[in-house]
Amino acid sequence: MTLPLGYRYASVYAGIRKDPRPDLALLVSDVPAAAAAVFTTNMVQAAPVRVARANLKATRGTAQAVLVNAGNANCSTRTGDRVATTTVKAAAKALRIDPAHVVPASTGVIGVELDAALIVNALPQLAAGLSPERFDDFADAILTTDLVRKTAFDTVGGCAIAGATKGSGMIQPNMATTLGFVVTDAVVTASELREILTYGVGRSYHRITVDGDTSTNDMVVVFGNGASGKRPPRKKLREAITAVLVNLAQQIARDGEGAKKLVHIHVSGAASEPAAVQIARSIANSPLVKTAIAGSDPNWGRIIAAAGYSGVKFDPANVDIFLQGVRVCRNGLAAAFDEAELKLKLDAADCHIEFRMQGSGKREARFWTCDFTDGYIRINASYRT
Amino acid sequence: MTLPLGYRYASVYAGIRKDPRPDLALLVSDVPAAAAAVFTTNMVQAAPVRVARANLKATRGTAQAVLVNAGNANCSTRTGDRVATTTVKAAAKALRIDPAHVVPASTGVIGVELDAALIVNALPQLAAGLSPERFDDFADAILTTDLVRKTAFDTVGGCAIAGATKGSGMIQPNMATTLGFVVTDAVVTASELREILTYGVGRSYHRITVDGDTSTNDMVVVFGNGASGKRPPRKKLREAITAVLVNLAQQIARDGEGAKKLVHIHVSGAASEPAAVQIARSIANSPLVKTAIAGSDPNWGRIIAAAGYSGVKFDPANVDIFLQGVRVCRNGLAAAFDEAELKLKLDAADCHIEFRMQGSGKREARFWTCDFTDGYIRINASYRT
Repeated sequence: MTLPLGYRYASVYAGIRKDPRPDLALLVSDVPAAAAAVFTTNMVQAAPVRVARANLKATRGTAQAVLVNAGNANCSTRTGDRVATTTVKAAAKALRIDPAHVVPASTGVIGVELDAALIVNALPQLAAGLSPERFDDFADAILTTDLVRKTAFDTVGGCAIAGATKGSGMIQPNMATTLGFVVTDAVVTASELREILTYGVGRSYHRITVDGDTSTNDMVVVFGNGASGKRPPRKKLREAITAVLVNLAQQIARDGEGAKKLVHIHVSGAASEPAAVQIARSIANSPLVKTAIAGSDPNWGRIIAAAGYSGVKFDPANVDIFLQGVRVCRNGLAAAFDEAELKLKLDAADCHIEFRMQGSGKREARFWTCDFTDGYIRINASYRT
Repeated sequence: MTLPLGYRYASVYAGIRKDPRPDLALLVSDVPAAAAAVFTTNMVQAAPVRVARANLKATRGTAQAVLVNAGNANCSTRTGDRVATTTVKAAAKALRIDPAHVVPASTGVIGVELDAALIVNALPQLAAGLSPERFDDFADAILTTDLVRKTAFDTVGGCAIAGATKGSGMIQPNMATTLGFVVTDAVVTASELREILTYGVGRSYHRITVDGDTSTNDMVVVFGNGASGKRPPRKKLREAITAVLVNLAQQIARDGEGAKKLVHIHVSGAASEPAAVQIARSIANSPLVKTAIAGSDPNWGRIIAAAGYSGVKFDPANVDIFLQGVRVCRNGLAAAFDEAELKLKLDAADCHIEFRMQGSGKREARFWTCDFTDGYIRINASYRT
């Protein structure tokens, strides 16, 4: 893979989390970059979310660095805003850049004070370690309960795109789960990036669910620093960045806590795309569907019932359902299929649910989730303690 | 407890479910009774739901019998309507009553043809077994994965009320979970019963969740046959029937699949009751909150975050949260409490979450759910097979 030009990365163990693996990461563009971000819609918002939003607003979409810590969400704490502002200033000083050009992000436990000194003291070492090659180190440092590093890469019209993300519950408040960072060296404006990010996130991060929870700290940020000197057609850049976002989002769903399988949901024949998404989300969020997939059980009754309570009107007699390409429901009724054979197919790491309607329209939507195993319970029943 | 006058009950094993425990139950009033029912809002509706609704509409709220089977939902099958109609007619013939006065109900697997002959052949024995004393037998026969019988009783103004219910996932499509039957010997009209049932279900069955799924077969039915000759004030009857419904609904949540604890959620200080319900439901449906309760983890960050994505606007700084009466969050921030002591308190079979807001209003709502343990996964990963 090709990394975009003009970016450097670093990570360090600052002592925020208990286990001594890197928990503080930095991403820096050589020059101020066009930047856009989407944030959690939760009423409870972490301090770094507030500061990041304010900075991007003040600079009208210009930024040069991302400072991320794992192990503490810096949310619902007395000192949250002060900690976020202090660490942003310290990073700006270490990098000799404008504090308004630093985007802070945090992930970890809620309601526990974050000691700014840990970050401030680690910053000189962190800044000294910056290197164009250390993208993977950056990606590793932002993980919490994730089992695997999550990165994605693409190129378009002579430009490179690199993305790193974290998250394995979607979106766990106590781990403040989803952070995503995408950098490109394309020449692009902030307003173009905003449009691209809204489009791409709508088809990626907003199309996954692990447990239906939405975090206080979610943030997806994209930088475009123009270092390649190339300006790809906006639509091509949009598709490439969206592909990276979809790739990252799928990795989150696949690494869902306790998950063994990535579930691909495709709803077609809807009157509108939002209606298709609504049905897909309802299927994806059903614990009954997700436990059935865990058990390789071709239990289509749970799928049609989850669609049935999605709020979208449809006639069950117009519905066909396919699992791994095998028709299990035809016109709302049981179809004949080899159950033993299909159970074996459902043991795969990728499970495909197709929900096809007829007579309603031609809109469709894709959505991703994971199966629901007892591992999820084990991880979450005692995360905090 | 006192059973209402003028009702008889029976159950029998008709061979619908594999294990040979009673799976067919009958409830009969000596005379046609005023009747009201609420049904699932799922777009996919089982045949008995359609027939029951049609019968109650045709008779303008008069019914004399309930015929329930467990083990098969009679939903999404080719012969569904015919099976429901045939068995209703057979029951009417055996009881020598109007077929339009029979309310059918089914619970069990979706998408598998139900053999009407099993029910028709069992009906003579079922009818012969009718007795005013066999309420518990009726209540036992309607259970599926439930671990315990669920009944509740009350008296008001010389009248008796008895209720039986089933359900341990809320509402599992493949088990078509929640059925509720309440009988009283009060003198009451069908329109009064409708108003009472809407009021009562809104504060009971609509205030519980186990897994957020909604079944294709849900139904709560109430009969009033006037056999006591007493006509209690409508408001008193409403409160008594509501108390029975709340009692039944709590039993469903407590017996949630894999559950070890009943979680009582109380939201106060909201601008409206719907807003309070919305926050409470969001907390109740959060797998992260439910797994934390399973682990006796006083993880209030997950609670405030779940409220935060409920869609109701509030300022976190105005929120206090109590667990088992202990304040764990004050003004949106961590409160000081003895964590070891609170963990012990959270080991209780009843856990209380209080979410108190200030400055928004004075409305409140109660809601019930269960904790989320690995038992839920075990039960649901292989229910069908």
